[in-house]
Formats: sequence, structure tokens, C-alpha cells
Amino acid sequence: MLASPGFDDAASVLNVGGELLGVVAFAASGALLSVRRDLDIVGIVLLAAATALGGGIIRDVMIGKIPPTAFTDLWLFGAAVATALVIFVWQPPARLTRWPLDITDAVGLGMFAVTGTVTAYQHGLSAPSAAMLGLTTGVGGGIIRDALSGQVPVVLRPNEYLYAIPAAGGAALTAGLLHFDVYRPWIGLLCAAAVIAVRIGSLKFGWHGPRPWYTVRGRKNED
Amino acid sequence: MLASPGFDDAASVLNVGGELLGVVAFAASGALLSVRRDLDIVGIVLLAAATALGGGIIRDVMIGKIPPTAFTDLWLFGAAVATALVIFVWQPPARLTRWPLDITDAVGLGMFAVTGTVTAYQHGLSAPSAAMLGLTTGVGGGIIRDALSGQVPVVLRPNEYLYAIPAAGGAALTAGLLHFDVYRPWIGLLCAAAVIAVRIGSLKFGWHGPRPWYTVRGRKNED
Amino acid sequence: MLASPGFDDAASVLNVGGELLGVVAFAASGALLSVRRDLDIVGIVLLAAATALGGGIIRDVMIGKIPPTAFTDLWLFGAAVATALVIFVWQPPARLTRWPLDITDAVGLGMFAVTGTVTAYQHGLSAPSAAMLGLTTGVGGGIIRDALSGQVPVVLRPNEYLYAIPAAGGAALTAGLLHFDVYRPWIGLLCAAAVIAVRIGSLKFGWHGPRPWYTVRGRKNED
Repeated sequence: MLASPGFDDAASVLNVGGELLGVVAFAASGALLSVRRDLDIVGIVLLAAATALGGGIIRDVMIGKIPPTAFTDLWLFGAAVATALVIFVWQPPARLTRWPLDITDAVGLGMFAVTGTVTAYQHGLSAPSAAMLGLTTGVGGGIIRDALSGQVPVVLRPNEYLYAIPAAGGAALTAGLLHFDVYRPWIGLLCAAAVIAVRIGSLKFGWHGPRPWYTVRGRKNED
Repeated sequence: MLASPGFDDAASVLNVGGELLGVVAFAASGALLSVRRDLDIVGIVLLAAATALGGGIIRDVMIGKIPPTAFTDLWLFGAAVATALVIFVWQPPARLTRWPLDITDAVGLGMFAVTGTVTAYQHGLSAPSAAMLGLTTGVGGGIIRDALSGQVPVVLRPNEYLYAIPAAGGAALTAGLLHFDVYRPWIGLLCAAAVIAVRIGSLKFGWHGPRPWYTVRGRKNED
Repeated sequence: MLASPGFDDAASVLNVGGELLGVVAFAASGALLSVRRDLDIVGIVLLAAATALGGGIIRDVMIGKIPPTAFTDLWLFGAAVATALVIFVWQPPARLTRWPLDITDAVGLGMFAVTGTVTAYQHGLSAPSAAMLGLTTGVGGGIIRDALSGQVPVVLRPNEYLYAIPAAGGAALTAGLLHFDVYRPWIGLLCAAAVIAVRIGSLKFGWHGPRPWYTVRGRKNED
């Protein structure tokens, strides 16, 4: 589907490796949240798998890749389950579920925003559509994890730090590079790393997106 | 796919215009809910887009329209984002988010119930199936909006006023008109207007669907 | 798609009958939960239909069966609506919504885990993929029911009894039998019955999956 010689191979190495990294990271974030919520081994495995595979399943359904990769390449499911089992055996105390959850979530966000964009573009979507789907893939896993746990998704929390903005930026950059045919797998890794760095930086340094003035002034918007 | 000359063109004018109106209305309802919940600009845009495009994405996946219109016709996404930005800039006080939210939600419900039915029928579904999918499309956006915000969807709230009943009626009427080949775009607009009027009327005049007697008598169903 | 003579017919009898039983059971569980939450007739019908048809719709989208059976074979929708109406007319007191909800939920879980696996296998998925999709189908209805009602899905609750484990076992057993070509419809029914029995037994006798030690010792995992 792509003309550049060698592109497909190298891109699929990145996509496979990047997708695996994203799956492991999101699985860890789901498992850590499960531990904090006192779930048993089944809850840990299921929430890890839903977080790790959910975004990719949505992406595959949208581009017509049926059955979705998560149901055919079962080593992705295996990687999610293995990650969950490691965390179950480790049994981290609750205070070790906070920042590791933030970091694994950021890694999953960055990897899936980029690989989601690449996969969508390779399936023939236009660059803007691919970027939009990459953003959906990136934020999808976290939304599924949070919705299944009965909490408001991180992306929709008041006063949350930058989350969708770096993912949208990384997806748009990836799509632009693909469109002008200068995308290379290692550049994709850099894009993902930039998304992760901005997300983690926003948590550490308190960066915010533009907020309505009543929120900025610390006044709640009430009647 | 349809024989009547001129049907496709006129229908697509209605479908495009009606879908746009539905997208803008649902986007506004999502943005208003975000403002009430003190979300920042990203949360406002994402909740508006998910509300506006979610129902149509579900409909397109169900009828095999892959990728869904929301990912290919990006002006729909653009309309949702623009609507959200207008509301962000306006920054309405919370008391101005109540009834506008109800009204925009009603408009989205009515438009999508009708255009969803028409789209499904044009893709070859039988009239009853098309009506069922139209109902799903109409209530889908609001369900997604409410579920992502961590609240029970309006359609499943105790003591809620008429919501799914007018949508089901409008979808069934549209499907019947399509089946007997007397559907015209302006009749579709009338159907949507009737759905909207019944929904808003039920809010104003307190119309309810049949309820179990213990609810009617004001006694909660408890042990 | 399957060579064994008579397999398709008998299998489709089981699949149709089993799917119908699963639909009615899940619809009853959704309707009972609605009654407990004081929903009106529309909420009861919609939650019943979403619970009964949701898992199958996800399964059909994943295997490319478009439009999903729920939108083409409307007697399934009719069965869900009829079940909901029976429960609306009966108007059970809240204490009669507890164990019937558990039992109908278990029946839906068992039937869909098996029929979901069979359907996926017949659509060409490998045995492990079919089992994974069968598990998804089985737990999907309950997840949709609980998420729409604003509660944490049963499968992700702390201290919950066996739920996904019997479903995964039943799906894996069914897939194994299909793979080695010794599956027979009545064996499928036995698999489903075993899933149901283990689920109900775990509720009655307090069986748990492995839990982290701090949960087992009754200590909450806190900072």
C-alpha cells in the first residue's frame, strides 16, 4: 500500500515494537489501577487487557481491519496478561501505584497515538483522518480503563494536566510526515517520546491547557 | 440504491444538513455539560466531539460504512470543534447551561433519529432494522456524553421525562414512510421537529412514560 | 464453512436456541436491575435490550458480521422487549431482584460464552481467537448493563466471586472441542451449563479467584 522501498518492513518493525510497548505500558497502567482498587487476579488481568487492547480494537474496527489485531495476534493479549501477572505477583503497595500509573499511561498514550496514525494511514485514510484516528487510539485505552473502573476518564477531568494536547500534536506530526513522505520509523519513535515527555512534564511542572477564567481564578462555575 | 429519481440528491441534502444540525446541537450539549463540570478547553472539545460524532460512528460501523463518516468527512469534526470553541469563548455561567443543554440535546436526538434511519435504510437495511438503528443513533450521542462524564445516561434515569419514546416514534415513522416510498426530505424534517417538540414538551409539561405503580405512588421500591 | 455433515444445522439450532436463551436471560437481568433503580418502562426496555444484545453486537462487529444479527433478526430484539415487558407488568419488589438477577446473569454469561465461541469459530477465527471472543461476548452484556447504570461492572468489583474464570473456561473448552472436531451441540449445552453452575456455585459457596495477600488478610491496600 506504500511505495517507498523498505518502508513497509521498517514501519512494521516500529509498529509491532511500538504497539507491543504501548500494550505493555497500558496493561501495566490498568493492572496498577486494579491493584489500587483491590481487585483479584481476574479483575487485574481483564482491566489490563481491556486497557491495552481497547484502543487498538477501536482503531481496527474504524479502518475495517476485521477481526481486529487483538483477536488474531494473540501474543498482544499474552503480553497484556503477562504484564498483569507480573504486577499481581509483585503486589505493589498503593503508594507505588500512583506515579508508575501516570508514567505507564503516558507511554501507552504516546506509542498508540503514533502507531495508530501510521496504521490508519497505511490503510488508506487521508493524513488528517489518520491523525484523528491516532488521537482516538491513544486516548481510547485510558478512557476504557477509567470508564470500566467507574471513574471519569483522565482526559475529561477538571483541572487535569496536558493529556490530549500532546497526543493530538504527536498524531498530527506523524500524519504530516507520512503525508510528505519523510516519515521514518525512528522519527516515529521520537514523536512518541515527545508526546510522553510533554505529558510527564505537564504532570511535574503543572502545565495546563487554556481554561475558562472562572476556573483560572479558582472560582467554581456555580449558580 | 434507491430508484426514485431525485431521491438521492434531495435525501442527501437533508441528510447532510440534518446531520450537520444534529452534530452542532449535540456538540453544544457536550460543551455545555463540560462547562458545568469545569473542564478545560481540551475536555470541552473532546466531550463535544464524542457527543456529536459518537452516535453516527456507531451507526456507520453497524451498516458497514468503514471508515465512518466522522473520520472521512472532517468538516463534521470541524463543526463540532467550532461549536465547542464558541462555547469556550462565550464561557456561559452555569445557570445558562441547564435549559440550553436540554434543548440542544433534544435537537440532536430528533435529527439523528431521522437521519440515522434514512442512512441505514439507504444502506439496504429493512425498515424495522433501519428504525431500530435510527433510535440507536439518536440516543447514542447522549449516552456517550453522559457515560464519559460519569453520570447515568439521561435515557436511563429514574423519573426522567419522555426521551427514547419520541425518538423511537420518529424513527419508526421515518422508516414507514421510506418503506412505502412516500418519504420526502421535508417530511423527514417534520418528523425530526415532532421528536424535538415532544421531548421539549415532556420537559415543560412533565409528561412521563408508564411507570411501575410504586414509583407513581411516590414510594421507592425498597426491601 | 464447516465440513461435518449435519453440523451446520444442529449447530445453528443450538446457536439460535442458545442465543435466544442468553438473550432472554440477559434481558431479564437488565430489566431486574432497572426495576431496582426505579426506571420507567422505557428505561426497563432499553437496559434490557442493551444487556441482551450488546455482547452479540460486539462479537458480530469483531468478526465482520455486518449488520449485526441484533439489527437483522429482529425477533431477538422482540424477545428482549417481551422479557422486559413481562417484568414491568410483574413489578417485582426489590428483594425479588437480587438472586433472580444473579441467576439470569449467570445464564446469559454461560450461553453467550459458548455461542459466541461457536459463532466466531464458524466465521473462520482460530480456536484461541474464538475462545477470546467468546469470553468477550459472555462478559460484554453484563459490562454494558452495569456501565450504563453507572455502577462498576460485576467482573471488575473487589471481592467479587468467580465470573470471568468459568466463562473463560467454558469458551476455551468449546474452542478446543471445535478445533479437534468433536464439538456437538449438546456438548455445547453442557459447557454452558457448567459455566452457569460454577458461577452460581461461587456465589453460594463463596469461591474466589486468587487475590493479593493484603486483600486475603482483610487489610485494604492503602498508603
